[in-house]
Amino acid sequence: MATVAFQGERGAFSEQAAHDLLGQEIDLMPCRSFEDAFAAVSARRADSAMIPIENSLAGSVHRNYDLLAEHHLTIAAETYLRISMNLIARPETPLDAIRRVHSHPVALAQCQRFFEERPEIEALPSWDTAGSVKELMEHGGPDEAAIAGPAAAPIYGASVLREGIEDHHRNYTRFLLIVRSELAENLRAGNIGGTWKTSIVFQTRNQPGALFRSIAVFALRDLDLTKIESRPIEGRPWEYSFYLDLRGRDDDPVVARALGHLDELAESVRVLGSYPAGEVPA
Amino acid sequence: MATVAFQGERGAFSEQAAHDLLGQEIDLMPCRSFEDAFAAVSARRADSAMIPIENSLAGSVHRNYDLLAEHHLTIAAETYLRISMNLIARPETPLDAIRRVHSHPVALAQCQRFFEERPEIEALPSWDTAGSVKELMEHGGPDEAAIAGPAAAPIYGASVLREGIEDHHRNYTRFLLIVRSELAENLRAGNIGGTWKTSIVFQTRNQPGALFRSIAVFALRDLDLTKIESRPIEGRPWEYSFYLDLRGRDDDPVVARALGHLDELAESVRVLGSYPAGEVPA
Repeated sequence: MATVAFQGERGAFSEQAAHDLLGQEIDLMPCRSFEDAFAAVSARRADSAMIPIENSLAGSVHRNYDLLAEHHLTIAAETYLRISMNLIARPETPLDAIRRVHSHPVALAQCQRFFEERPEIEALPSWDTAGSVKELMEHGGPDEAAIAGPAAAPIYGASVLREGIEDHHRNYTRFLLIVRSELAENLRAGNIGGTWKTSIVFQTRNQPGALFRSIAVFALRDLDLTKIESRPIEGRPWEYSFYLDLRGRDDDPVVARALGHLDELAESVRVLGSYPAGEVPA
Repeated sequence: MATVAFQGERGAFSEQAAHDLLGQEIDLMPCRSFEDAFAAVSARRADSAMIPIENSLAGSVHRNYDLLAEHHLTIAAETYLRISMNLIARPETPLDAIRRVHSHPVALAQCQRFFEERPEIEALPSWDTAGSVKELMEHGGPDEAAIAGPAAAPIYGASVLREGIEDHHRNYTRFLLIVRSELAENLRAGNIGGTWKTSIVFQTRNQPGALFRSIAVFALRDLDLTKIESRPIEGRPWEYSFYLDLRGRDDDPVVARALGHLDELAESVRVLGSYPAGEVPA
């Protein structure tokens, strides 16, 4: 796991998540898009990718569900990060000079109260949180600022003018570590204790009651589902793939039988990974 | 339904959807945000709001699910619109002069092939599709363009340089017409034939198998679910509300009994509306 790909610029939340899970001794590979991060692992330019999959306020990162389905990679681990947003400016910029603040639209939406209390400040969408700090330090004007996580300002030599400007402090993002399948096999061989999760994707036949019968295979075996998510299937309007997380390891006999049962009922089933369950921080 | 609120500037996809469902004789009320469109109906400044709820490629518009839960309004109708994206420029701008294209990030993401074939053109996020055309005509430079739907260019006197630049032509958005409850009662009194849908939101008790038992109340009565969506509950990380659409009217005896049964099992249940099912265009 020496080289970890992630979407965004240095200082992104994904970079923090990678350090939390894997420590400081890793090489980071910033990527322009989630597609590029997945492709870097598939093409062996990176050993793993750290990708956000769900935020406790904004919901799922749908693009990454699609990419999990498209790439034949495996989930090796999950980790949860508390999301805190800082207002970041050039060192010479005072708070009362700021008129324009750049960040990713999701980050801007999570700081609505800050903008409501300061109608003189305009919120402007950009592609990336940490990237908006980098852009600010390279080309920013005297009335501009950015919003990003705690790791971003020190990397670019910017100043934090306000810490924790997000509306809700119980704001967490769940990240997944994605690896090639053979590496996942090695990781799990050495790691069998504790609580595990298994993530799968399946498509039902287009029949009434198909979803009900699909989740029955888990309920009838007392297997606990921790998440279910539906995604449109491209080119088949209003048909869906279902992404499901359950407690248990895919080589546990009860889980394996439930998955076999689902295979009888569903049009297709794929296991995306079995991995140790992460802890939500306090 | 004389005054219809919608998010965005004149020429937005929501405006097209409003004309498709209600004809040309309506007053349009452009709103800055989805919140503002819902609030305009709640505060009786508008008779209805037309809001996008799901795109067949990008998935659900989650913010609008949350707003349906927060406001005590009712879904009175649904309509489907085929989404087609045009490249739009100032009348004097030729295609080969364009270096920067502005639009909503979802619209930009749906035109990836256009940008991959033209690496000299930069895609820049903005808040709005039609709004980026308005901005282009007011302040745009000689190398700038925008991406928006067919209704936008004529409204602002802009030129369409390329039609249908979206990657996938089977691209539809489902819109809901939102009204105050008393208006919904009047509308349904005069309208009983055809196929109906009912939309509900419910929260399960936090127990294993709770979702399974909840959808069993429909499956055991052969009621067909057309959509299920989970949304995080604010302040209760990793607990979810479920949004569910089923075929049938809420005053049909079987549907009413299923909803009563769900009420026994769930922590809370709310009917968001019963309305005639819309047709997906060819």
